[in-house]
Amino acid sequence: MEGEINPRMTFRGKEVLTWSLNNYLGLANHPEVRKVDAEAAAEWGMATPMGARIMSGNSTQHELLESELADFVQKEDALLLNFGYQGVVSIIDALVDRHDVIVYDAESHACIIDGVRLHQGKRFVYAHNNMDNLEKQLQRATRMVNETGGAILVITEGVFGMSGNLGNLPAIVALKEKYKFRLFIDDAHGFGTQGKTGAGTGEHFEVQDGIDVYFSTFAKSMASIGAFVAGPEQVIEYLRYNMRSQIFAKSLPMPLVIGALKRLELLRTQPQLKDKLWEITYALQNGLRSRGFNIGTTQSCVTPVVLKGQIPDATALTLDLRENFSIFCSIVVYPVVPKDVIMLRLIPTAAHTLADVEETISAFEKIAQKLEQGQYSKQTAIPAVS
Amino acid sequence: MEGEINPRMTFRGKEVLTWSLNNYLGLANHPEVRKVDAEAAAEWGMATPMGARIMSGNSTQHELLESELADFVQKEDALLLNFGYQGVVSIIDALVDRHDVIVYDAESHACIIDGVRLHQGKRFVYAHNNMDNLEKQLQRATRMVNETGGAILVITEGVFGMSGNLGNLPAIVALKEKYKFRLFIDDAHGFGTQGKTGAGTGEHFEVQDGIDVYFSTFAKSMASIGAFVAGPEQVIEYLRYNMRSQIFAKSLPMPLVIGALKRLELLRTQPQLKDKLWEITYALQNGLRSRGFNIGTTQSCVTPVVLKGQIPDATALTLDLRENFSIFCSIVVYPVVPKDVIMLRLIPTAAHTLADVEETISAFEKIAQKLEQGQYSKQTAIPAVS
Repeated sequence: MEGEINPRMTFRGKEVLTWSLNNYLGLANHPEVRKVDAEAAAEWGMATPMGARIMSGNSTQHELLESELADFVQKEDALLLNFGYQGVVSIIDALVDRHDVIVYDAESHACIIDGVRLHQGKRFVYAHNNMDNLEKQLQRATRMVNETGGAILVITEGVFGMSGNLGNLPAIVALKEKYKFRLFIDDAHGFGTQGKTGAGTGEHFEVQDGIDVYFSTFAKSMASIGAFVAGPEQVIEYLRYNMRSQIFAKSLPMPLVIGALKRLELLRTQPQLKDKLWEITYALQNGLRSRGFNIGTTQSCVTPVVLKGQIPDATALTLDLRENFSIFCSIVVYPVVPKDVIMLRLIPTAAHTLADVEETISAFEKIAQKLEQGQYSKQTAIPAVS
Repeated sequence: MEGEINPRMTFRGKEVLTWSLNNYLGLANHPEVRKVDAEAAAEWGMATPMGARIMSGNSTQHELLESELADFVQKEDALLLNFGYQGVVSIIDALVDRHDVIVYDAESHACIIDGVRLHQGKRFVYAHNNMDNLEKQLQRATRMVNETGGAILVITEGVFGMSGNLGNLPAIVALKEKYKFRLFIDDAHGFGTQGKTGAGTGEHFEVQDGIDVYFSTFAKSMASIGAFVAGPEQVIEYLRYNMRSQIFAKSLPMPLVIGALKRLELLRTQPQLKDKLWEITYALQNGLRSRGFNIGTTQSCVTPVVLKGQIPDATALTLDLRENFSIFCSIVVYPVVPKDVIMLRLIPTAAHTLADVEETISAFEKIAQKLEQGQYSKQTAIPAVS
């Protein structure tokens, strides 16, 4: 995929309409973002600061960004992370010891699973968003920590990136009245897209205070790399000196820090970007629904389209969509979904237009019809790509 | 620590001579590096490409850098990694299953330890660089895999970042004649600094072919972030589709890829940078030795200075060194070293001068004398920093 980050990019020399980038607010190519990215790299280069954050890797800009992020997500303090994936792994690793019990959603992202895999104590998984099952696991966990003297950490996501489901945060936070636990939320897809101010899924549900430890990457709505974790001052101060991937690896380079400050400023001061994202999202989701498509259970911008078909159908259909309709989106097949399901996943952004939406729905109608007529199954070989 | 990456930087408003940055070849502020970093960020911004490498995160530049890195370290193929720490964790995680046995050096970096922690099979640690003990562990591991049907992965480092010791690669590779195992080397401090062409510690020892999987970060001699892993085509192809931190997280941003291409070009075409690094290293290490300092067992640029003293002495001494001699270096105390040892760690670079070396050794003579006279122990309180 070549060219500037945009709904229209080049794939193997041909323009495609792409729905596969998490550039929710269209910041990747926002002129102010591009200007600051260029200026910061010219001023600082990509090397500085060298060393881990707690050694020679600190700067006043890193501290400023932390302070602004904490304010924005309504937490006491925040800590910048050099990369999201290893950040989540080390947050989990630092927050628990072997006396503690982790209770987590079954559809959690790979980085959460890797963090849980490092845990030496008990971990109980609950069926995705199933609150009865969560309560059952909390009861088991409570019995366990009553013996070990440890505590319980519940982990889930704000927005699940495959289904678009929201973590049922109101119900989970309500369980705090019956059970004693801390709640850690990975809000990668929620930060900047959910809530009145864009502060995420906790704000959307008005339970931000019930989230003890809040994480987001900069890789989605912020269109960059790096990440942050926010929470009570005491917890963040502890994490600052105890996250292995942060104390034993290099700090976030300065142009990424300065670029994140600009992105955060736009996210705060230009609510029209989020409004546009949702205008496109509603048009896409309502349009698909009204033409009879099954878009699953999404409650967010993530838009799955669920079709019936086998894996060879899926391959032929995706190729047809790309080569003949010039539409590029992610495809999900078995074992992520059942064997007879083809899931196409669309990520709307503020950079898309209503014409893009109409073009896409119209193409989807045609491929769905061809799929139903068995046209893709008839293809004995995949045609060569021009 | 403020200002451009350089031997002379500003700490709390005052210029200090710094020996704490892994900017071995002085590339962080090399004019050609700074030019390319600025141009690449202006052309691409920091957002592109979006998505994981195997999704929408690929580009011809990513592939070009991989090809050049593979050539440079004399391996069939290479794979770019979005960050070194999580890269190593996922390499280890991908290379072994529960039937396999990991045998690793006791002083391995935290990222190796985290990778080993994810392993569900047996792991045997050998005493740092102790080849008799390694052989004993290989015997245990061989017995184990004869039962499980698995295989053995030996993990060590090219250059150990604290002591400066080199991993005993010739002896380890020779053990392949008696035992069947694959060898994974983390050469973070060796890449660019060791070997005739800078291809690392394997090249230095002329056993590069004996290293099956070779890793280096871009965070040291390359003065950036990101990393790569190189090895046989079949192994790299497997890693490309099976490293969790790479398939479930964003690809390395384009300016970092283009910046790494330039850094690699300088590293290959300007051997005078490595020559200068070693001129400074020899001057520093020989100078310290000739004035009676104990610099441990280093065989690399990493230069530890081992002094006798308690932790309060260490604090007072470091403050004296910084405030009155304007010298900034890392300090290592108990529990990393024994209780009565103070270790100062110096990282020479091609950007230092022989005058910097002389100034530093002279300051070290003075603080060592004060330490011996017990002057630091007499301080009842640490003076306020101006």
